[in-house]
Amino acid sequence: MTDTTKRLRILSGVQPSGTLHIGNYFGALRQHIAMQDAGDAFYFLANYHALTTVNDASTLLELTRDAALDYLALGLDPQKATFFRQSDVPEVCELTWLLSTVTGMGLLERAVSYKDKLARGIQPRVGLFTYPVLMAADILIYDADVVPVGADQVQHIEMTRDMAGYFNTIYGETFHLPEPRLEESTARVPGTDGQKMSKSYGNTIGIFDEGKVLKTKVMGIVTDSTPVESPKDPESNTVWQLYRLVAPPDAAEDMAAQMRAGGYGYGTAKKALLEAIDETFAPFRDRRKELASRPEVVEDVLRDGAGRAREHARRVLDRARSACGIAPR
Amino acid sequence: MTDTTKRLRILSGVQPSGTLHIGNYFGALRQHIAMQDAGDAFYFLANYHALTTVNDASTLLELTRDAALDYLALGLDPQKATFFRQSDVPEVCELTWLLSTVTGMGLLERAVSYKDKLARGIQPRVGLFTYPVLMAADILIYDADVVPVGADQVQHIEMTRDMAGYFNTIYGETFHLPEPRLEESTARVPGTDGQKMSKSYGNTIGIFDEGKVLKTKVMGIVTDSTPVESPKDPESNTVWQLYRLVAPPDAAEDMAAQMRAGGYGYGTAKKALLEAIDETFAPFRDRRKELASRPEVVEDVLRDGAGRAREHARRVLDRARSACGIAPR
Repeated sequence: MTDTTKRLRILSGVQPSGTLHIGNYFGALRQHIAMQDAGDAFYFLANYHALTTVNDASTLLELTRDAALDYLALGLDPQKATFFRQSDVPEVCELTWLLSTVTGMGLLERAVSYKDKLARGIQPRVGLFTYPVLMAADILIYDADVVPVGADQVQHIEMTRDMAGYFNTIYGETFHLPEPRLEESTARVPGTDGQKMSKSYGNTIGIFDEGKVLKTKVMGIVTDSTPVESPKDPESNTVWQLYRLVAPPDAAEDMAAQMRAGGYGYGTAKKALLEAIDETFAPFRDRRKELASRPEVVEDVLRDGAGRAREHARRVLDRARSACGIAPR
Repeated sequence: MTDTTKRLRILSGVQPSGTLHIGNYFGALRQHIAMQDAGDAFYFLANYHALTTVNDASTLLELTRDAALDYLALGLDPQKATFFRQSDVPEVCELTWLLSTVTGMGLLERAVSYKDKLARGIQPRVGLFTYPVLMAADILIYDADVVPVGADQVQHIEMTRDMAGYFNTIYGETFHLPEPRLEESTARVPGTDGQKMSKSYGNTIGIFDEGKVLKTKVMGIVTDSTPVESPKDPESNTVWQLYRLVAPPDAAEDMAAQMRAGGYGYGTAKKALLEAIDETFAPFRDRRKELASRPEVVEDVLRDGAGRAREHARRVLDRARSACGIAPR
């Protein structure tokens, strides 16, 4: 099954989860997009999955479109990677059914993410329970070699391997078993209140924020009450922690030195930070606006990606259908 | 949603479950096929469903092909009804996913057929649990008005209505709610040992049995030891009970009278029964052989049916996708 001469196939689902902030960018997104240079990468916008949490048509359409714009604006290159909407390859739903007929209930019942949701008192829907089967189908249908995941998702890759194994045992070698690749945990990015930047804390700076919105957020960063003239520890203040991420290394060192020396106030530092954020993300913002004004271009990219993805998907699905005795269409 | 001028759409799944016997024929099959005259009937060969019990490719292919031959041989008319393989309309798998994201786990957990299987100690697979969602998709995707079912299946139609209702409530009127139509319980057909004819009792006479096989079975019907010369009660003996089903009414009355009069032995009765069975099913056997020798004809029938079914399925699926915010393909 494994052709050692071929490039590593990397698969990743993109959650259409709303406005991205610079914590997402430095924490995961940047590395996520850089994957496109590491092999034959497939990125899909997981809109079928999103139905387990979003129940409004226009919201889901908007989230899906926004996620496409975000990724393309941030540098996902559809010439390098195959980028598509999950729902444009409905073959995964058929494979989900095939896999569900070889997968024991126990496997899904042991899923930690499902048990967590039950423990939090969520009244589960069937899709929340069977989600790992769809996820397995998403991975197996492209013969993926590697799936980069956070620590909380490793179990899902193990479950995918289990399902592939059940099927292969019953029907003969059909699926290629993927490996999880644990995504490195990256620097903690502080939010405007000094806690970890997170949508749920309301302390975010959006990647595509600009003008007054951006200024208000940056100038509102919570600092301590050290007077202007006193020395400050750059490592322990939010302004410098953020500046370090967006400024060139020597500029960051320069600001750190000025803070340690004293006579350098937070207001000045914030202005420098604002400028650096603005400059860092301006090209992304511009590109996003340009793409947003030409939705047909984005649509073409996604359709083209879906076309390529579907070719693979159909080949693997046909293999699975034939293995279990579903007559050819 | 309901257009009162249109013909009633009737939907029915055919289980590819192996060799059919005359108990199946008089108990359900005959009426089942007659449905094709009652409206716009859709019959599908439930091969996706069969994967929950059959795990061998050639067995499943053979069962599917046999079920197609059986139904066509027994009079299913593809000019009247739309006849197709479930797997030729993979849109049902996609709809299954959409429905699973609006259906609470509780609904499936309350399914009697699933609870029964658990109680019998079956280690359930996911497909056995989610089967009612696929069944709902099979029904809803054709905007079916009526689903003829046995008493044990009424709950599944209620569950289908529930799922359609959840979806309609969340996303607006999308699905047409089907009604179950309880199939009339028909005469109990005795097997060769006098018990109800059933594959599990090994007492069946196959619809397509002929020659020695048929003769051995009929001549081996268990009878009581009433001597030839004594009067016999036709109502309480298997030979007459079967004869009544296959012979013209006056011939059946005639045999009954001779049995009551005495001097009419079971051997003679069995010969008459053998002849009547043979005559009744000969045209079906001939037609089945003819179809079996021309698999391309059957394939054409099924593909044509699938084409018609798929048109409906795509229309309804598009309605559902659009309602919940899955971008058009």
